Order: sequence, then structure tokens, then C-alpha cells
Amino acid sequence: MQSLQNNNTVRPLRVSRTVSWGHCDPAGIIYTPRVLDYAMETLEIWNGEVLGVTWIKLNKELSMGFPTVRAELDFLKPPAVDDVMTLKLDVLEVGRCSLTTRVTGQDDAGEEFFRVRLVSCLISIPEYTPKEIIPEFRRRILAYQAVCQENNQT
Amino acid sequence: MQSLQNNNTVRPLRVSRTVSWGHCDPAGIIYTPRVLDYAMETLEIWNGEVLGVTWIKLNKELSMGFPTVRAELDFLKPPAVDDVMTLKLDVLEVGRCSLTTRVTGQDDAGEEFFRVRLVSCLISIPEYTPKEIIPEFRRRILAYQAVCQENNQT
Amino acid sequence: MQSLQNNNTVRPLRVSRTVSWGHCDPAGIIYTPRVLDYAMETLEIWNGEVLGVTWIKLNKELSMGFPTVRAELDFLKPPAVDDVMTLKLDVLEVGRCSLTTRVTGQDDAGEEFFRVRLVSCLISIPEYTPKEIIPEFRRRILAYQAVCQENNQT
Amino acid sequence: MQSLQNNNTVRPLRVSRTVSWGHCDPAGIIYTPRVLDYAMETLEIWNGEVLGVTWIKLNKELSMGFPTVRAELDFLKPPAVDDVMTLKLDVLEVGRCSLTTRVTGQDDAGEEFFRVRLVSCLISIPEYTPKEIIPEFRRRILAYQAVCQENNQT
Repeated sequence: MQSLQNNNTVRPLRVSRTVSWGHCDPAGIIYTPRVLDYAMETLEIWNGEVLGVTWIKLNKELSMGFPTVRAELDFLKPPAVDDVMTLKLDVLEVGRCSLTTRVTGQDDAGEEFFRVRLVSCLISIPEYTPKEIIPEFRRRILAYQAVCQENNQT
Repeated sequence: MQSLQNNNTVRPLRVSRTVSWGHCDPAGIIYTPRVLDYAMETLEIWNGEVLGVTWIKLNKELSMGFPTVRAELDFLKPPAVDDVMTLKLDVLEVGRCSLTTRVTGQDDAGEEFFRVRLVSCLISIPEYTPKEIIPEFRRRILAYQAVCQENNQT
Repeated sequence: MQSLQNNNTVRPLRVSRTVSWGHCDPAGIIYTPRVLDYAMETLEIWNGEVLGVTWIKLNKELSMGFPTVRAELDFLKPPAVDDVMTLKLDVLEVGRCSLTTRVTGQDDAGEEFFRVRLVSCLISIPEYTPKEIIPEFRRRILAYQAVCQENNQT
Repeated sequence: MQSLQNNNTVRPLRVSRTVSWGHCDPAGIIYTPRVLDYAMETLEIWNGEVLGVTWIKLNKELSMGFPTVRAELDFLKPPAVDDVMTLKLDVLEVGRCSLTTRVTGQDDAGEEFFRVRLVSCLISIPEYTPKEIIPEFRRRILAYQAVCQENNQT
């Protein structure tokens, strides 16, 4: 049994996760804010793997941050305890300083539990001012997006 | 020092909360999903107090649920450890089965940390089908909304 | 309704808290690790108020930390959703570098939900080495302990 | 990169996990209560896999629960963001109604981050009274313990 596992050979990036007992509420389904947590954890893994920089390194070594400035969540089907889901991350838009991604959680049959749209903004620390996405990041993001589009079409 | 406290004599409903150590991340600011948690806790208090029914009673005794079907979060200023905030809940829209509310978190000077728009849908349990908002709830929601509008204008 | 509130005129320090929907599991009772969270939040409030230094200030300004090195939890009666509890902190022992406290959670009738014994150790940062409890802290801890013992006896 | 993964062919059961950004506090290390969460998640996986019954099935279909009645945590080395750890579960004692297990978290070199001793008690629901461990569970627990002892010796 695998609870949270990332298969790093496929694109879009996929993270597999089992909904645990402590993530569910007395109605037996996932506690709503946990969905945003799952999406953020997926974005965190994506940052480390695709941008090549973990959030802690970004923060402490590069004096940057990539905080979420807006999030939109659509809850389509409530995941229950022990449900296994696949989280998938797609890049929607790359702006001057901002990045828009979408994390979807779906069951084995491909039916969606939820869809989360995240807008992140690169910033300088400690000024907390927007910063243009550095070329190395932009190159990696666009390359990821291109491979995803190719794979999603086939 | 008061960490989470609701002043039930004012409208819109206000909940006061201090951002705790465990709610913050290594950057020293609130971990993003926690904002949705704060909004949901505010909605939970509102349900118990304004609708007059706690979620557990709604679920176990009345065979209903009021799950969130959509959430939109705007992060305006990141709350840091020990920041004190006031959470305020406004009713935006009442549909046939759905309710749209907005929870804002602001500092002592009234500056906003975040704004969360929540769309909830009343459902029958265990069918998980939409259910028309019952008259008693509708009456209470509209009365709350009317008092808030009056107070917000003055 | 008050969810988390500290009455700072009484000793031992007391924090009042309502068990929220998202803190409970599908069995309808508090998710076990949440009890340690409640105890830590109580210790955090105690640090700010009794020692006069919040954890973030201790960490960033004084280059110290006061991490937990051992915790013992006894679960006596499971708190359920919407249960109101009072958390109370007693100082048990003050060593050279360590502090032993006990946080109890009890209902309105004084019946205990749980008892948590926490051993904290003052450390220097970034060395992470034990540090003798500074005189100002020791003085405040002993004064708190003395008042508590007096009040507990009456 | 794998965040939470269970290798179900080895005994004692091992779960691998990467410490995520949201699990750490402003000091950059794991927030203390999260350690109990990691231990409980390991116990949850063990229940499903070794006892052959998930907690939700135990609760809803068999009218039993296996709550934690006591926990002891020793924090030996604080895990930081992105640290990878292996969680290992050993059975220490089997009583009439109770089970004592130990979950250890260690790094790649085998050095321990923490050690958590958990005492669980089988109960009947909804009476919440202790219940003798049923023969099928006892058989599976003892078989697991025997294989672990064998493997730990070699």
C-alpha cells in the first residue's frame, strides 16, 4: 500500500495519495481545507523536482519566495477515508512574475474529486516585492508545459 | 491574551484569533491552507450560532450536510506568528440550495490579510443530493444578512 | 460562544477551547495527535504570557529555543465535536536546563479528558545545545509555580 | 521523489516519508505534534495491512474501535524540511484488551529522529468499553511480532 508517492517519470507530474483517517471529519469525508493542503503539497513536490529548487532553499539560499496569491477550489466528489487518489499538476499560464497551475485529484477511473487553481507570485525576500520569473525557472516551466501538452493530447 | 474568541453581540459575526506557532511555516508566515481552515472554522461557528444548528447535529440528527462546493481565496498580506486577526463573515447570496458567504481576515487597523468566498450547498444525507434550503434556515440567513447590511452602512 | 480563550487573571493559566469539526475524525471524537497540539498551544500561550517571551522572539531575537524533548499523554475520556474544555498548565519541575509541565484538559464538571506531561529543554541556537535556564526565566517560572500551588491548595 | 510510501514486503513494516514545508514551524523543524501524527498514520497503515481491517471498517462494520489510551514520545533529533525518514513499527506487548507498539522514525543512516510508544485498547462501540482482542487479531499480531523478532536479530 502506498500513501503518497510520486512517479517522476511521467508528465504531467502525478502524486498518489491515500486519504487517511486523520484527514477526514465526522461525516467520514475529507475535511475541506485538507484539499488545499494536498494541492500545496503537490505544488511543493513540483517545485523541488521541476524547478529544481525546494521551497526552503528558495527561501534561505536564494532569498526568494513563491507564495500563493489566489486559489480557486472546486469540490466535485468528496473523497472518503482510504480513498486512493492521483494528484496531477498542469501549468496553465506563465506571466511576468506569476505562475498559474492547476492540481486535480482523481480516482482510479479518472473521475475527478476536486480541481484547484493556484496563482503563485515570485517575490524577493525580505522585501516581499514581486520579482520577474528568472530565466532558468521560466525555461523549466515552459519545457514542462510543452511535454504535458504533448502527453495530454495523445 | 485571547487566541480565538467570538463576540456574539456584533453583526457581522466576528471571531478573533491569534496566529499560532504551529500554523506557520519555515518562512514565518501562515501556511497557505490554514487560511481556508480559519475560514471554515468561522463558517462553522456561524452555522451553530446563526442557523442554530451545529454541523454534527445537522449531520447526525437532521440527516443533512452543508458542504463547501467552491472556495476562492485571495491572499492580500501574509499573517505572521502571533499576529492577531479578526475574522468576519458576510452573506453574499442565498440561492435555492446554495449559500455564498465571504470570510475576511483583517488586522487591528482594518487592513485585510485575506478574503475567502465560500459556496456551500445544502444536501440530504446519505443521498448526497442538493436540498432546498429549509424555511427556518432561509429566514435566519436573510435576517442575518439584513442586520449586517444595516451595520455595514453605518 | 468562545472557542479558544485565555483568562489571564487566574493561576494556573487556563485556556478555554471548543473542539471543532475539523479536529475530529470519522468516529466523531478528537483525532489523537490533536491533543498534543492543544497541549503545545497552551504551552505556547504560557511562554508568551508567563516567561514574557513568545517563541518567535525567543528564536529570532534571543537565539534560543525551548523544544519539547519528551511528551507523555494519557487519554482518559475522548472529547467529541463541540465539547468545550478548559486547558490548565501546571509546572511540575524545573531542572538546570529543563522544564517539566503538565497540561490537563477537562470538561465543565472538572472531569479530565486527558493529561499531557511535557519536558522542554532550553537550547542555544543554532548550536542546538542545552543552555542553563536564564535567571529571569527561572524567577518567573518559580513565581508562577508558587502562586499555582497556593491556589491549588485552596 | 517519494514522500510517503510503504514497502509491504519487509518486516517490521516500514513507511517512508519526506517532511513537507507545511509540517515545519518557523524554526524550520517539524512542529512537535506532527510527530504523533506520523506515528498514528504508521499505526493506521499497520492496522489495515497487518490486522487486515482499516479503522473505518473496524468502526462502521465491526462496531469496534482501537483508540490510543497512552502515548510516550521521545524526541532525539529534530527532523527538518525535506528530511526523508523511515518509520518502523514494532509490537512490544499484547495484553488482554491492549496492544503496545513502538514507532521509530530514522534517517537514511539509521539514526533515530524520535521514538513513539503507543498503547491502544480495543473497545466495543458505542459502549466504549474494553473488549478482549479477538482471536483473529491476536493471531495476526503475534505472527507479525514473531517475524519482526526474527528479522531484527539477523
